[in-house]
Amino acid sequence: MDARRYHALPSPFPMKRGGALHGARVAYETWGALNAARDNALLILTGLSPSAHAASSPDDPSPGWWEGMIGPGKAIDTNRWFVVCVNSLGSDKGSTCPASVDPATGRPYRLRFPELSLEDVADAAHAVVRDGLGVERLACLVGCSMGGMSALAYMLRHPGSVRAHVSVDTAPQAQPFAIAIRSLQREAIRLDPGWAGGDYDLHAAEGGTYPDAGMSIARKLGVITYRSAMEWNGRFARIRLDPEQREEQPFGFEFQVESYLQGHAQRFVRTFDPNSYLYLSRASDWFDVAEYGGGSVLEGLKRIRVERALVIGVSTDILFPLEQQEQIAEGLRAAGAEVEFVALDSPQGHDAFLVDIPNYSRAIGGFLNRLHAGSGPR
Amino acid sequence: MDARRYHALPSPFPMKRGGALHGARVAYETWGALNAARDNALLILTGLSPSAHAASSPDDPSPGWWEGMIGPGKAIDTNRWFVVCVNSLGSDKGSTCPASVDPATGRPYRLRFPELSLEDVADAAHAVVRDGLGVERLACLVGCSMGGMSALAYMLRHPGSVRAHVSVDTAPQAQPFAIAIRSLQREAIRLDPGWAGGDYDLHAAEGGTYPDAGMSIARKLGVITYRSAMEWNGRFARIRLDPEQREEQPFGFEFQVESYLQGHAQRFVRTFDPNSYLYLSRASDWFDVAEYGGGSVLEGLKRIRVERALVIGVSTDILFPLEQQEQIAEGLRAAGAEVEFVALDSPQGHDAFLVDIPNYSRAIGGFLNRLHAGSGPR
Repeated sequence: MDARRYHALPSPFPMKRGGALHGARVAYETWGALNAARDNALLILTGLSPSAHAASSPDDPSPGWWEGMIGPGKAIDTNRWFVVCVNSLGSDKGSTCPASVDPATGRPYRLRFPELSLEDVADAAHAVVRDGLGVERLACLVGCSMGGMSALAYMLRHPGSVRAHVSVDTAPQAQPFAIAIRSLQREAIRLDPGWAGGDYDLHAAEGGTYPDAGMSIARKLGVITYRSAMEWNGRFARIRLDPEQREEQPFGFEFQVESYLQGHAQRFVRTFDPNSYLYLSRASDWFDVAEYGGGSVLEGLKRIRVERALVIGVSTDILFPLEQQEQIAEGLRAAGAEVEFVALDSPQGHDAFLVDIPNYSRAIGGFLNRLHAGSGPR
Repeated sequence: MDARRYHALPSPFPMKRGGALHGARVAYETWGALNAARDNALLILTGLSPSAHAASSPDDPSPGWWEGMIGPGKAIDTNRWFVVCVNSLGSDKGSTCPASVDPATGRPYRLRFPELSLEDVADAAHAVVRDGLGVERLACLVGCSMGGMSALAYMLRHPGSVRAHVSVDTAPQAQPFAIAIRSLQREAIRLDPGWAGGDYDLHAAEGGTYPDAGMSIARKLGVITYRSAMEWNGRFARIRLDPEQREEQPFGFEFQVESYLQGHAQRFVRTFDPNSYLYLSRASDWFDVAEYGGGSVLEGLKRIRVERALVIGVSTDILFPLEQQEQIAEGLRAAGAEVEFVALDSPQGHDAFLVDIPNYSRAIGGFLNRLHAGSGPR
């Protein structure tokens, strides 16, 4: 079962760094109903790998990636809000991406896909909202992780299109530590002979030419930086695998934490297109609010016009450190928004927004309640 | 020029986890002179990859890996101390290692090298000191990073052999975050087809079968975790490479931080034996003081008998976090030692001991001065 809908982008769809896509589309899902005033739409922009399936629905009852947060009576209450989640342009979960067929050649784009930026991701999402759903102004734009950067791009490029903003575990630009991690993830894929310069077998089930090793390393490095050492001390400590769980090979896994990472990698390697990963990862490194502020992050943020904002971060996040969320809060406040800043101590690191549902629910649900109450009847 | 000397280990040399080495040796270097009382010896145990060449000397004037710390009038004053640095057993910088010829077969050990533990590294170093140099009791045992764990093993297995201890940026056991990082480094090597199950070309110059990609990824991941995000924010920020410095390939390097990592990797990949790396990395994961304390780190540390100790750590170290140095200090204190604990805020992360020479000199030099003064005339 599939709850995805598709929006055809204008053709050509110009890309920020040059080139254009022809006949491109974006996948999205919705929950709840758009009201008559068309002023209750809430858009969610995702991290690097999630699909548009943020929550279950009658059309697709499988749990979504933010199942605990979205639904009737939940923090993002679908009885109240018309919730939309867009699959990022360039991601292979239904949107046009490097694995899609290039209409000019009849063959997959692969590395002939134009350079992708988060501004393109934002523009494509904006097209869904305005042209596809007929919503001129979002009640709220929620961006998580990479999606938080896409959300900043959205607000900078489409002034007046957002009333309130929720910024979750994100940053106004990538810092060198995050760039180093992502560069190494990309390199692990690029150096894998199975990547074949981007020409691996796109539809290989388990065999075929495919950068399994590179994708596995990239994913494990991701998981390591998405969580926190503190969480793992409590969760894994130095617990060994049972002998029968151990790998029968030299230097095979022996500790539970190794097996945990292996499980994450196995679930990921063949379910995300490696070229899509490379394009979206690089787009994350490129994004920089300072480009909109003459080289200053603060000046860039000051160009964003929203009425209210909630900015959340976690002290244990090593990929998007708390100081960067403070920067966003400060910038939006300087821009004139009424800003709430929430610093959590969740042990789960960057991934806390996916795991520590009670604390994120309290913060986001509270903000949305006040937003709803403040709006009054129209 | 080469200042290395070699000590032949007892043959057979039994290994902690089983098996034995025959005809094995350990490389070491010395600076300064052993006094008549043989009570001024200071042994340094190294991190995973450094050689015994910790400082320059007439026989080898090239700078050593701790050049700023060791020498006449420096913090580790070679006018006063007889300084010894041992290349870890299992490392390819002169000591017997997986690349060495197995006398039983006439061919390199490779993966037939017995399982290596830091206890074996410690026992081999102890053999150099006692049997090779005729020193029954070290004035001071200094251990940095992995060498700090080897030093704990040394003191636990050879009671009475150490008067004072300096513990630098280390831990009493590997925590799951460190295990995850090292496991991923090993996996990058193992998954590289060039590793060939350990049967790569040992003496390949630049060509041949060799896990260049895996070693490069492992080293970069090492450097990322040896430094700190804070340092890189100031040092690299988002500075781009000049166009002519960029790689001419898809997803090639674009930021200075990427080029910095690449430089580190290039200097490392062909200068450290990949199998040695795997053995020493795994030994670091295995080491656990709690094995000596019935499952308790504190009880294990309480079995160590030294008169004085200095324990140093850095708040920006993500691989060996400061709490672990606090644990060592607490344990040695509980064991009856007079312990000084120094927590530095150096921005360089785990590598601070190699970079922030002024602060480390002050702490270590001060401790050694007091140790020397306290000893009085003999």
